[in-house]
Amino acid sequence: MKWEQAWLDYKPLASYQSRDYFTKLTVRARGKCIDTAVTELTKACKEILNIEIEAVDEYASEGILLTVQETDELGEEGYKIAEKLGLITVSGSGEVGVLYGVFELIKQVKLGNALKDIKISTKPDNPIRILNHWDNMDGSIERGYSGDSFFFEDDTIIVNDRTVDYARLVASIGINAVVINNVNVRHAAKYLVDQRYYEGLGAIGDIFAGYGIDLYISLNFAAPISVGGLSTADPLDEKVSEWWKNQLARLHDAVPNLKGFLVKADSEGEPGPFTYNRDHADGANMLARAVKSFGGKIIWRCFVYNCQQDWRDLKTDRARAGYDNFLPLDGKFDDNVTLQIKNGPMDFQVREPVSPLIGAMPKTNQILEVQIAQEYTGQQKHICYLIPMFKEILGFRTYCHESQDTVADVISGRTYNQRQVGIAAVVNTGNDANWTGHDFAAANLYGFGRLAWNMSLTSEAIANEWSRMTFNGSDIVTENVTDILMKSWPAYEKYTSPLGIGWMVNPSHHFGPNVDGYEYDRWGTYHRATFETIGVDRTPNGTGYTTQYNEPNAGMYEELTSCPEELLLFFHKVPYIHQLSTGKTVIQHIYDTHFEGVEEVASMIESWDEVEEHIDSVVHDRVKQRMQFQMAHAKEWRDVVNTYFYRKTGIVDAQKRLIHS
Amino acid sequence: MKWEQAWLDYKPLASYQSRDYFTKLTVRARGKCIDTAVTELTKACKEILNIEIEAVDEYASEGILLTVQETDELGEEGYKIAEKLGLITVSGSGEVGVLYGVFELIKQVKLGNALKDIKISTKPDNPIRILNHWDNMDGSIERGYSGDSFFFEDDTIIVNDRTVDYARLVASIGINAVVINNVNVRHAAKYLVDQRYYEGLGAIGDIFAGYGIDLYISLNFAAPISVGGLSTADPLDEKVSEWWKNQLARLHDAVPNLKGFLVKADSEGEPGPFTYNRDHADGANMLARAVKSFGGKIIWRCFVYNCQQDWRDLKTDRARAGYDNFLPLDGKFDDNVTLQIKNGPMDFQVREPVSPLIGAMPKTNQILEVQIAQEYTGQQKHICYLIPMFKEILGFRTYCHESQDTVADVISGRTYNQRQVGIAAVVNTGNDANWTGHDFAAANLYGFGRLAWNMSLTSEAIANEWSRMTFNGSDIVTENVTDILMKSWPAYEKYTSPLGIGWMVNPSHHFGPNVDGYEYDRWGTYHRATFETIGVDRTPNGTGYTTQYNEPNAGMYEELTSCPEELLLFFHKVPYIHQLSTGKTVIQHIYDTHFEGVEEVASMIESWDEVEEHIDSVVHDRVKQRMQFQMAHAKEWRDVVNTYFYRKTGIVDAQKRLIHS
Repeated sequence: MKWEQAWLDYKPLASYQSRDYFTKLTVRARGKCIDTAVTELTKACKEILNIEIEAVDEYASEGILLTVQETDELGEEGYKIAEKLGLITVSGSGEVGVLYGVFELIKQVKLGNALKDIKISTKPDNPIRILNHWDNMDGSIERGYSGDSFFFEDDTIIVNDRTVDYARLVASIGINAVVINNVNVRHAAKYLVDQRYYEGLGAIGDIFAGYGIDLYISLNFAAPISVGGLSTADPLDEKVSEWWKNQLARLHDAVPNLKGFLVKADSEGEPGPFTYNRDHADGANMLARAVKSFGGKIIWRCFVYNCQQDWRDLKTDRARAGYDNFLPLDGKFDDNVTLQIKNGPMDFQVREPVSPLIGAMPKTNQILEVQIAQEYTGQQKHICYLIPMFKEILGFRTYCHESQDTVADVISGRTYNQRQVGIAAVVNTGNDANWTGHDFAAANLYGFGRLAWNMSLTSEAIANEWSRMTFNGSDIVTENVTDILMKSWPAYEKYTSPLGIGWMVNPSHHFGPNVDGYEYDRWGTYHRATFETIGVDRTPNGTGYTTQYNEPNAGMYEELTSCPEELLLFFHKVPYIHQLSTGKTVIQHIYDTHFEGVEEVASMIESWDEVEEHIDSVVHDRVKQRMQFQMAHAKEWRDVVNTYFYRKTGIVDAQKRLIHS
Repeated sequence: MKWEQAWLDYKPLASYQSRDYFTKLTVRARGKCIDTAVTELTKACKEILNIEIEAVDEYASEGILLTVQETDELGEEGYKIAEKLGLITVSGSGEVGVLYGVFELIKQVKLGNALKDIKISTKPDNPIRILNHWDNMDGSIERGYSGDSFFFEDDTIIVNDRTVDYARLVASIGINAVVINNVNVRHAAKYLVDQRYYEGLGAIGDIFAGYGIDLYISLNFAAPISVGGLSTADPLDEKVSEWWKNQLARLHDAVPNLKGFLVKADSEGEPGPFTYNRDHADGANMLARAVKSFGGKIIWRCFVYNCQQDWRDLKTDRARAGYDNFLPLDGKFDDNVTLQIKNGPMDFQVREPVSPLIGAMPKTNQILEVQIAQEYTGQQKHICYLIPMFKEILGFRTYCHESQDTVADVISGRTYNQRQVGIAAVVNTGNDANWTGHDFAAANLYGFGRLAWNMSLTSEAIANEWSRMTFNGSDIVTENVTDILMKSWPAYEKYTSPLGIGWMVNPSHHFGPNVDGYEYDRWGTYHRATFETIGVDRTPNGTGYTTQYNEPNAGMYEELTSCPEELLLFFHKVPYIHQLSTGKTVIQHIYDTHFEGVEEVASMIESWDEVEEHIDSVVHDRVKQRMQFQMAHAKEWRDVVNTYFYRKTGIVDAQKRLIHS
């Protein structure tokens, strides 16, 4: 199968004012990543500038100089690029910094920017910038919408040119760690810790190492039983901890770039320490101690809740679960354990409040988990640019600390001066030719990497840059593509689930409208819509979830008057005739936004049509087809949701548009 | 895996007044079925009476005599049993009649009935009494709730002792034909017509032949392409018809007991003649001519509808599809084609009107298809005895003819003097030890066979007989089991889907309540419930479906005042406050029946508890566990449905019971 190169697709530049720098390359450093940096720069020079650049190691007075200079200012991974008197120096604080600097330099060339007087100095905001692949070893991908896995097939590990191209792509946006297998570790994946997979993991690990990417795998907590043949997986049983220690030490010996392990325990049927009346700290620390000798890290997911709830129960609240389960454990986790916390308290809905657990455990490392696989946001058949959502989350003030209290502060380590922290994304790639199914979905991958590095970038700037890197860089293309991206999340929110309520999707596959789809189910996902009211009371009168927030957030959410309206129904049960700040009632807001959302999709299609002549026809058609599907599906959403509420309330649309009865 | 013998489980009788007849067995006939009859009688004598009976061929003055005497009065398959002066003569009109007579005689013994002066003369009402297995060749069963297939595993055919025991079971209740593979013919099953399966089919066919059972398989209409390598499956293409003729002739040569073929064409994604702009008659007749030389039969299913409907469309009506598709073709089908028509116009809901197609095609052979696999009626986790439903269907007057116009008349051939007619059941068996998952589900299989033979048997009589054949025959057991069975369908209807509306189930697997589960889907399955009304208008003001019935049925259904109330919402859209004949409103009826249904399950459990001491403890526990599940699930149905309608209408329960809001 052929595949494309996404934003690393190099096309010749007809003319380029700064091409003369690329006649001479001096390399003053050694290492795997330095070699990669040279290879990448050589390739880019050849393909973009048609220059066969050759690396020399001599006194450099002009051209390009790659060098390592350790400085505190740049941390471990930062770099500087500076031009002076004909010499562009790319200096990394470590060898991977040089590689990142080279990718930045290539970007400048690809975008045709002048390099005279260039001066960039940057280091990543987040120590850990990790992708989570939910790839199964049979080749399927849980919540995958871009084809099958390129890591696994028929219970074997795939290593080929695509593995390299994957590493290039994600390293070019600053990703420094990748979990290659699904957090639900089933079947053959349990044996990734076994010697049968040493060779395959070793080969992937080597490729990753050249791009500064730490290899992670997901573990099955019950592996001592299924793989080890023990009778228990009790984390406090010495045989168990010994087994893990030996198993993982041998594994690390065979695969030296294997740096960490992701664990989903005691959730949705996965095994965990609860089976043995142990807590999450017991489980995580046992593993942490098993891998400490080689500097291994344990990332422990906080997606833990009772998935056998009863819709008749108005007190049990899935939203409370993460905080209730983990808060009491603050201070109990070892240093090399990090908790990975989903951005919201539910599960990647189009709109959720920020998880109150983030920032609430000062003595515990935390990673923010977002999902760029569009499980609930259109499954890469709809355009839904998620960077604006992530920006809102990162900017949220938790009030967990007297200063530096935003989510961005917490996960970057600024708040509590932590190092094993950062940001994770459940990733949206597969073996489709364009990697992400929908071409526009690549903007989420690109954007995640860029944002993980620099959380102060704006959504527009990232969209703009992705567009210029991906398409013909003419102004109209960049403008229209940016416009489409920036419209897409608000539009998706409008034509799907209103005012923060969520979950109005078909069960299991989570695609398409079904207002009652999860209403009477066991997953804790209810809208409670009656003939007169809708929403979930999460104030102290209801489930009490609001009390998990620090003040003034708790009070803000608790009071109907101060609760942000986009989250109104997440926190409150209100009459349909409740009046919003716009002067509209809730029901009229539902009707209006659903009509508007569809209109916005129409305008996105117009923008795309307008740039047809500037876009490769294969790509234009491919996107156009998905946009047409999105349009039809947005109408289905609009009609099902509006009809559902009209049928339930009998309240007519003030604008008398067609709502099917 | 071990399995049980269901109603053929023979236990020793301590004393039996008529045991002396079984000292001598005279056989005056020859044939495979005669051999089987002798084997069966020998086995029963040994196991029930501890007598080693031996067959002799001599002048018979006492004991048992098996003989064939062709008489018009008994048709091809009937038999007589008569005692005279110490000799019990079992005479069949053909050899299979003798076998049926022997099974009847064994039943009499097993039930401990006195045989002196016994006089039975019977022949089957229906020429074709056929079971449809929806078994896939990978071993799974579509809509199977009793384990995996005992015919197929890993794309191979299984032939073992269980095949024989299956044949015994179904022959003992008069089944004379079996389709062993799913009507959706996919993957390996397409190759059942190919020589690779001759041996396996031949072995099953031989076993079946000994029990008077014709072997049928389901065909894939596109097999000329997938199996034959042709470029088309156009039924009017000579290469296609030649291919089928050769393929099926060779197949019949190898498997002489293969007597017929079932086809689902042009429905739910299955291929068919529509692809080539041909009609069902073109497709069916082409196959019929291919098999005519060896007396083969084609059964063509009428489950054909557009499964890409739009819920916004109020005119297209899935219920109309069978009639609309097939009625114009009356007179066009060859003699050896039979149309197989589901009992209702939708799909095996707990309550549907009778399909208007039945009896509407005087020149066309018809088979009635019912489903004893409880797809929509509790999936063999709930007890739902379906024989009372089938009795209602069979007794329905179609007014298609001046006399003999019931469904029973039509399918038995009485109405139009037809022979290739009868009744089919989608069967409920699998490789579970007890064959049917729920022990009580065996009553549906038993009952179907008995009813197919004699449509004038009452539901109670069948329940009673099944209970006595299956359990300890003490009066309290028989009484309580019969009571449980007779309560079960009404109870299931009460706590699930009210007043004929149907489809309030979870999509795909069809289990458990989901009122809107199919409401906005593409399958033509809508209840149209708003805040003030519910139901589908199928009168001429609506979809016009009522006009497919003959008068006076059409008028009866069309008028709100004469429409049977159990089908009210199938035919009419009415306000929730519409008053029923009971004086209750529709909404109050919904609430009341849902509470009542649960109470009835409770009383069923009481009845079962009462007989605990009389029932084998393994069986009692097995049933009890399922009844407890049924109880909990009935409550879930009650609560979801009542809450749904309370939330939608705001109308409170007149009895102020707990309805969650």
